[in-house]
Amino acid sequence: MAGYVSDAVIRRLPAYNRHLRELEEEGILQISSQELGDRMGLTPSQIRQDINSFGGFGRQGYGYQVKELRQHIRHIMGLDQEHRMVIIGAGRMGQAIANYTGFPRQGFFTEALFDIDPAKIRMGTAEMPVYHADELEERLKELHAVIGVLALPPEAAQDTLDRLYRSGIRAIWNFSPVDLHYPPDMAVVNVHLSDLLQILSYQMKRQQEE
Amino acid sequence: MAGYVSDAVIRRLPAYNRHLRELEEEGILQISSQELGDRMGLTPSQIRQDINSFGGFGRQGYGYQVKELRQHIRHIMGLDQEHRMVIIGAGRMGQAIANYTGFPRQGFFTEALFDIDPAKIRMGTAEMPVYHADELEERLKELHAVIGVLALPPEAAQDTLDRLYRSGIRAIWNFSPVDLHYPPDMAVVNVHLSDLLQILSYQMKRQQEE
Repeated sequence: MAGYVSDAVIRRLPAYNRHLRELEEEGILQISSQELGDRMGLTPSQIRQDINSFGGFGRQGYGYQVKELRQHIRHIMGLDQEHRMVIIGAGRMGQAIANYTGFPRQGFFTEALFDIDPAKIRMGTAEMPVYHADELEERLKELHAVIGVLALPPEAAQDTLDRLYRSGIRAIWNFSPVDLHYPPDMAVVNVHLSDLLQILSYQMKRQQEE
Repeated sequence: MAGYVSDAVIRRLPAYNRHLRELEEEGILQISSQELGDRMGLTPSQIRQDINSFGGFGRQGYGYQVKELRQHIRHIMGLDQEHRMVIIGAGRMGQAIANYTGFPRQGFFTEALFDIDPAKIRMGTAEMPVYHADELEERLKELHAVIGVLALPPEAAQDTLDRLYRSGIRAIWNFSPVDLHYPPDMAVVNVHLSDLLQILSYQMKRQQEE
């Protein structure tokens, strides 16, 4: 079982998953912490620490079994099961997420979008319906979604999160530029695009000063 | 002058900027580390440490001048100047970024998009032109862009970054799911959407286990 895993390690888990998949595709069966570190831009001791913290798979001198380690990481991350999503907000960002082919390839399936704009609702298709936001609770009963994606104006985000929670949704992927309040049994990951752009601006400025 | 600022503090800078703007809008002139901490979900001592690390604005017992502190943070982040951007890839994600109204409001202006698909190039308008990617170097001479946004398939991302670098671009906002290689005088901020979705999956799984 995994013990305490730090935030920094959690942020690196997807990179482990990605690099191990590449190794599998290259037909590589085993890899040392040195080689894996070189690929990922980490020291061998960081690699060993990370992997120890989520389960202890190292065997001194033998390296890691690529396939076994990847399966373990995917299991820890819940990626060995499928996840159904609904997207609230069918504007450009909501549509971009709905149509991103990388997500279903990794087991994340968008079941429906919701909006209040009749023009956007008419844009829905049989495979990717756009329902009126008033139907959210009703539709969620049959959609079996576990993730709610918020791609709507910030002023509607908190109310929508509350409605999703009451309908049983416990995971939110939030693209609205607002800090949401949520119960402790809800998981929320924010993508504050403006914040990231500001961080890029900061980094540019620091480099100009060097 | 700002001294060493840790990655964790850098990630919090946009939140400082956002909360201080809200305080300004509410007409609040001064705030204590306790009150600012309550708003931001940080301890007063974290607030004081953060603000000390980027310039030392605290006056014991008096709190912070909201307007002065925000101006200082905006200056540190380079947000007191405008930034022009070009977006490479005019698909749904590129278009969503180009049309996001929050960016120009914060001084980030998209000057043009680039694509190789004639249908997408025809979608360009006078205010938001879409040029052929072959014209990238030529157009960059007159666009005065400083940020290149990569919203294109992963297999084209590295080559495009190299071309942008040779044209003088030193900041990249990368939405392609790939780890890019770049010279040390280039700033890169990644938005790996699939990685974030995997982190959400991990957090859901941990909560189910609790």
